[in-house]
Amino acid sequence: MATAQVMYDFTAEPGNNELTVKEGEILTIINQNVGGGWVEAQNSKGECGLVPEDYIQVSRFFVIRVCAYVGEEDDDGEWDEEWDDSRSTGGDGDTPVDEDGGATGHNLHSHRKRTLTDVGPVWLYPESPLDCVVADPKKGSKLYGLKSYIEYQVTPNTTSRPVNHRYKHFDWLYERLLEKFGSAVPIPSLPDKQVTGRFEEEFIKMRMERLQGWMCRMCRHPVISRSEVFQLFLTYNDEKEWKTGKRKAEKDECVGPLIFSTIDPEAPELDSVEVEQRCELFSKFTKSMDDGVKDLLNVGNIHWKRCTGPLPKEYQKIGKAFQNLSSVFNTSGYQGETTLTDALTAAGKTYEEIAQIVAEQPKKDLHFLMETNQEYKGLLGSFHDTVAGHKAAIDKVKEADKMMLAGKITTQDKVTMGKRTSIMSYSLQAEMNHFHSNRIYDYNRVMQHYLEEQIRFYETIADKLKLALSQFTTL
Amino acid sequence: MATAQVMYDFTAEPGNNELTVKEGEILTIINQNVGGGWVEAQNSKGECGLVPEDYIQVSRFFVIRVCAYVGEEDDDGEWDEEWDDSRSTGGDGDTPVDEDGGATGHNLHSHRKRTLTDVGPVWLYPESPLDCVVADPKKGSKLYGLKSYIEYQVTPNTTSRPVNHRYKHFDWLYERLLEKFGSAVPIPSLPDKQVTGRFEEEFIKMRMERLQGWMCRMCRHPVISRSEVFQLFLTYNDEKEWKTGKRKAEKDECVGPLIFSTIDPEAPELDSVEVEQRCELFSKFTKSMDDGVKDLLNVGNIHWKRCTGPLPKEYQKIGKAFQNLSSVFNTSGYQGETTLTDALTAAGKTYEEIAQIVAEQPKKDLHFLMETNQEYKGLLGSFHDTVAGHKAAIDKVKEADKMMLAGKITTQDKVTMGKRTSIMSYSLQAEMNHFHSNRIYDYNRVMQHYLEEQIRFYETIADKLKLALSQFTTL
Repeated sequence: MATAQVMYDFTAEPGNNELTVKEGEILTIINQNVGGGWVEAQNSKGECGLVPEDYIQVSRFFVIRVCAYVGEEDDDGEWDEEWDDSRSTGGDGDTPVDEDGGATGHNLHSHRKRTLTDVGPVWLYPESPLDCVVADPKKGSKLYGLKSYIEYQVTPNTTSRPVNHRYKHFDWLYERLLEKFGSAVPIPSLPDKQVTGRFEEEFIKMRMERLQGWMCRMCRHPVISRSEVFQLFLTYNDEKEWKTGKRKAEKDECVGPLIFSTIDPEAPELDSVEVEQRCELFSKFTKSMDDGVKDLLNVGNIHWKRCTGPLPKEYQKIGKAFQNLSSVFNTSGYQGETTLTDALTAAGKTYEEIAQIVAEQPKKDLHFLMETNQEYKGLLGSFHDTVAGHKAAIDKVKEADKMMLAGKITTQDKVTMGKRTSIMSYSLQAEMNHFHSNRIYDYNRVMQHYLEEQIRFYETIADKLKLALSQFTTL
Repeated sequence: MATAQVMYDFTAEPGNNELTVKEGEILTIINQNVGGGWVEAQNSKGECGLVPEDYIQVSRFFVIRVCAYVGEEDDDGEWDEEWDDSRSTGGDGDTPVDEDGGATGHNLHSHRKRTLTDVGPVWLYPESPLDCVVADPKKGSKLYGLKSYIEYQVTPNTTSRPVNHRYKHFDWLYERLLEKFGSAVPIPSLPDKQVTGRFEEEFIKMRMERLQGWMCRMCRHPVISRSEVFQLFLTYNDEKEWKTGKRKAEKDECVGPLIFSTIDPEAPELDSVEVEQRCELFSKFTKSMDDGVKDLLNVGNIHWKRCTGPLPKEYQKIGKAFQNLSSVFNTSGYQGETTLTDALTAAGKTYEEIAQIVAEQPKKDLHFLMETNQEYKGLLGSFHDTVAGHKAAIDKVKEADKMMLAGKITTQDKVTMGKRTSIMSYSLQAEMNHFHSNRIYDYNRVMQHYLEEQIRFYETIADKLKLALSQFTTL
């Protein structure tokens, strides 16, 4: 079920069993081994015929492998161990971890390590994971300075050569990906056009961070990352190539449900009852997780406000009260209390420092916990359409017999429907597994980051207080 | 200027130059060396005469030593060092420090070590400091169980023999001390009859702690601690002795301004201008310190409420959100995330524990900071009358010349007034120095305690978080 896109117009010569096609048109390849530079193809109207090989581009195949469950769970403790060990879930050690956290590159390619599993269909992950860094936002202008914009530098690990993109380019990419892959792959929304942050600099930083997060998630996806449009975005050589590529991508007709024809599950058809059960479980899961994520975001927001508002103000007041008392003590006229007053002042200053530390802490830890959950809130939302589309297809297949009896569809149609739906099921399950695997990796990472920063926070304060304590004389 | 209290009625034999006196009357001793078992004394009406030595009890002298400033400040670094080192300010190393803090015994006897000072008059501190422990509150009842009360065990370090006292006994002691010493020594109020604390147990604990604090402060005072009534309270042997002692103390006529006749400054008269300056400085100081203390109490109260209210609730919510997410993850049906879900659950529980720690922390540190400041608020308030009484006496002395010219007082009266006022000045300055020295000790102690507990608090949380972190797999 490979598809091909027509590169150039071709007009059939009558009587030669040829097919007239137009540039951009999507064909289903029926027989690629006709020979003599010809392939047999079918257009969207169902007409079949020969088309010259050079006039079309056969779409890449996205292979889904089914990882069969092998071995006994209870036979071997090691099995469990390997499984429980999320170490094998994450990217390789070389994955660049952005110092600012959150927007860290990560490419899933670990499923091949996991041959002893029954998770079901998984995407075929690339050998070397794609990754990119979004950095160095620069102000540009056009129309003789009348219009200004921000350009971000995007550097993929494959070429290490930066390309520049404006937000609207990311938005263009998002639209293309949604159009082309949206039926099979939930495409998370781009970061909001309006991000909170009163200052332009803060706004740009936040947007960059979120674009980085979005790009990493796209890089991690084995279907997205290998797509022509995504590669164009990351690796175009010059303005001309970019514009040509853009035009081509916009004309791409292999979009929407047609994407399923580019997916090749290396396995027999799935058990439809099991598929439905899995999908239902997943729907329930995403609903619960959505609730959990929203709950955490809610709590986090309240905590953020407290940590940046009233709490540091209180520490500041405590600090001021100590220093104030120290000043009063200094006016006593009583000799020999400089040790006390100095220490009391130092303690007061320490609490003012603590106020600062407390106020700045959420940016260091809670921020990434929030961003990750925010991202997942979006991801969970984007799954909805994909799951619904799949469900509609399943329902249609269920009605196929009735429709065939009513003469509305042919037996061939029914078989085609069944096959396509099966691919959709494979694809959705590969997506579900992709999601879970990423989720485990992401939450493991963000929780560790959060706890590490929290530990650093409490230890820093303890150290500061120790220093303050040392100024007092021992009793 | 020693005084004596009449023990038994004595009727003068006419023509023998004797003086008729009544039990409880206070006399001023004019000549103690008359011989033959007689002393020459003057009663409050100014009448003089001989009184049998056995019929009176010469009051104890409270000596004030003036620590003269010796040595050059800049000559010798060691001088400064000894001075700045509050180590020499506090009680000796044996002072029992109550584990519950706050109500810790402390006796000032360090001034003797401080001979190289110009702080001015200081009380003569006893060789071994008095101290006591208030503990073991027990419910008692009388009237066949109709009335119940709480008895506290008070154990002085001098006898190590506990005596029992009810709150009303402490109150009785307070009234006696106020009556007898109030003109010279600011007597801090007893803890409120109504202490906050909803539960009886909590109430009793709090009252005991505050009674302990009050008793310690009284023990520390060289005049109070050696007084007969205070000694009676601490060391009576049986009910009979207690009742007899009580009656005697209640009949004591050496009260109010007469207390100054029992004080013997071992020094020439003070420079009245300097005295006034010192007093004014002190008044300003107490006013400022009162403001500072109230400020700290205010801030502390707000902080207390946050730490016991909204803050732990937030940590609990964070904990619940983590655990909730973990439960959701457990329903994924995806294998190999038990490490993550277990760790996430543990992290959630850790934040619930942190909530508990946060909520209980103020009782461990802020409490004592608050109690000490609360105590000082009372102390500062009790100084007001003492300072005002002194100021009135000074003003009267200033008017003495005018009054003498107007024939309202005699030259002798003027001299007596001057001498008495001088003793008041000595006494007040000794009190001021006593206050400062205690203040340095107390604040040094309570700040250290606060910081130590705060450090323990932050370290405990950091340790708990480390444990939680260790449950996640390293990336």
